[in-house]
Amino acid sequence: MTYAVGLLLDAGLVFASDNRTNAGVDHVATFKKMTVFETPGDRVIVLMGSGNLSITQSVVGQLKAWNSGEKAPRSRTNRALSKAANMFEAARIVGAALREVYALDGEHLREHGTDFNATFILGGQIGQEPPRLFHVYSAGNFIEAGPDTTYFQIGETKYGKPIIDRIVRRETSLATAAKCTLISFDSTMRSNVSVAMPIDVLVYDRDSLKVGFYRRIPRNDPYMTGLSDAWSRGLSAAFDALPDPDWPVGASPVSKSRPRRR
Amino acid sequence: MTYAVGLLLDAGLVFASDNRTNAGVDHVATFKKMTVFETPGDRVIVLMGSGNLSITQSVVGQLKAWNSGEKAPRSRTNRALSKAANMFEAARIVGAALREVYALDGEHLREHGTDFNATFILGGQIGQEPPRLFHVYSAGNFIEAGPDTTYFQIGETKYGKPIIDRIVRRETSLATAAKCTLISFDSTMRSNVSVAMPIDVLVYDRDSLKVGFYRRIPRNDPYMTGLSDAWSRGLSAAFDALPDPDWPVGASPVSKSRPRRR
Repeated sequence: MTYAVGLLLDAGLVFASDNRTNAGVDHVATFKKMTVFETPGDRVIVLMGSGNLSITQSVVGQLKAWNSGEKAPRSRTNRALSKAANMFEAARIVGAALREVYALDGEHLREHGTDFNATFILGGQIGQEPPRLFHVYSAGNFIEAGPDTTYFQIGETKYGKPIIDRIVRRETSLATAAKCTLISFDSTMRSNVSVAMPIDVLVYDRDSLKVGFYRRIPRNDPYMTGLSDAWSRGLSAAFDALPDPDWPVGASPVSKSRPRRR
Repeated sequence: MTYAVGLLLDAGLVFASDNRTNAGVDHVATFKKMTVFETPGDRVIVLMGSGNLSITQSVVGQLKAWNSGEKAPRSRTNRALSKAANMFEAARIVGAALREVYALDGEHLREHGTDFNATFILGGQIGQEPPRLFHVYSAGNFIEAGPDTTYFQIGETKYGKPIIDRIVRRETSLATAAKCTLISFDSTMRSNVSVAMPIDVLVYDRDSLKVGFYRRIPRNDPYMTGLSDAWSRGLSAAFDALPDPDWPVGASPVSKSRPRRR
């Protein structure tokens, strides 16, 4: 399983992904799921993949090959992310790479009963354009985050969604958004053992056109451990401070009595 | 969609289920998903269903028919929940009802491309036995909550799972567990519009052998609204109190600067 999230904020972009891959519980490994295409002063493009690892790796391999000058046989259009005129074209290029891999592998996977399953979060900024964020699907089609969307998630998305919904707005600072992303990972890792440390975190400052901050947060990282503990204590305290029910269960002798045991 | 949770505590049992059913977004309705079989002084059995509504309703209908004395044609064993010797037998009876419905409907559903999808949470106490909690699957097989399991969920389970994992232990009081269950519903309803008020809540006090408390919490219930608001404020405060990252993004002029806009 994978968990990855990309956030689009007024101040820039935040990306985070775990590095756990598993094919059954007895084949667990660490693979980097975040790829950065950067030309300082011109563009930063970040890609995170989820799904069948052979597909997501092949897509990244294809994109790197195109970026290095390999010509796409079935296309006369540009396929190099380093030359994409804007992020919309970049999303089309990622979609084209997915279709290239599908053309090669799709039928063979189907013969072996394996779905062609791979989705990507793509975000970045090119030149004068504002930062943009996309969600690219297995078929190579994609959607873009509009004014009402602050983030996309891929992989094991549900456990870590509520806290992002509560905290992050477009005007949230990059530091706060990064912190919220780590809490979102904490909730996910507590509930699903197939999402695990280390976590790659990348922060992009709007209009900087270079990677502002990148770090791989390792297992037992002191800040992450402290954050997780503080969040547990804070949640428990917030829960304890909640009003008791106004119905009898909270006040009746029945529910407040010690449990009887036979 | 459905969300339902059953908790097994030292002090008794807590059950909660929503009442939203949808077949596509244009066919949304309210149906009761919690059924109680109670013989005060002898037994309380609570059943909550998730999945295909025609199946879960048929299972409940079959169980009520058996309870009223209808004989099961393919069985010489008891099928009346009111006469089950213990909760294990009750779980087998629910499984038998599922298989009865499958025998009638399974093939026809398959011909129309519909999965036979129905799962149940079954809990209660019969006579001298301690309270027990089961998760019954579509095939009529089931698992029981052991000493390390405090709850089962069915339906849209993920959004509301982290808070239960953090708060509820076997020794948690019934009132606290009921409050935590409502918070779990709050998180789920925020993230999935197909889970919605009203919520049925039932609290069973160990060894009482009668329903201790039952209430349908309606939309705009003042306590639920206040709880939801207090939880939002408490979560935000807990989040704001978290330590900032010890890496540059939290302190650098880059991330603390106002976003530049073109």
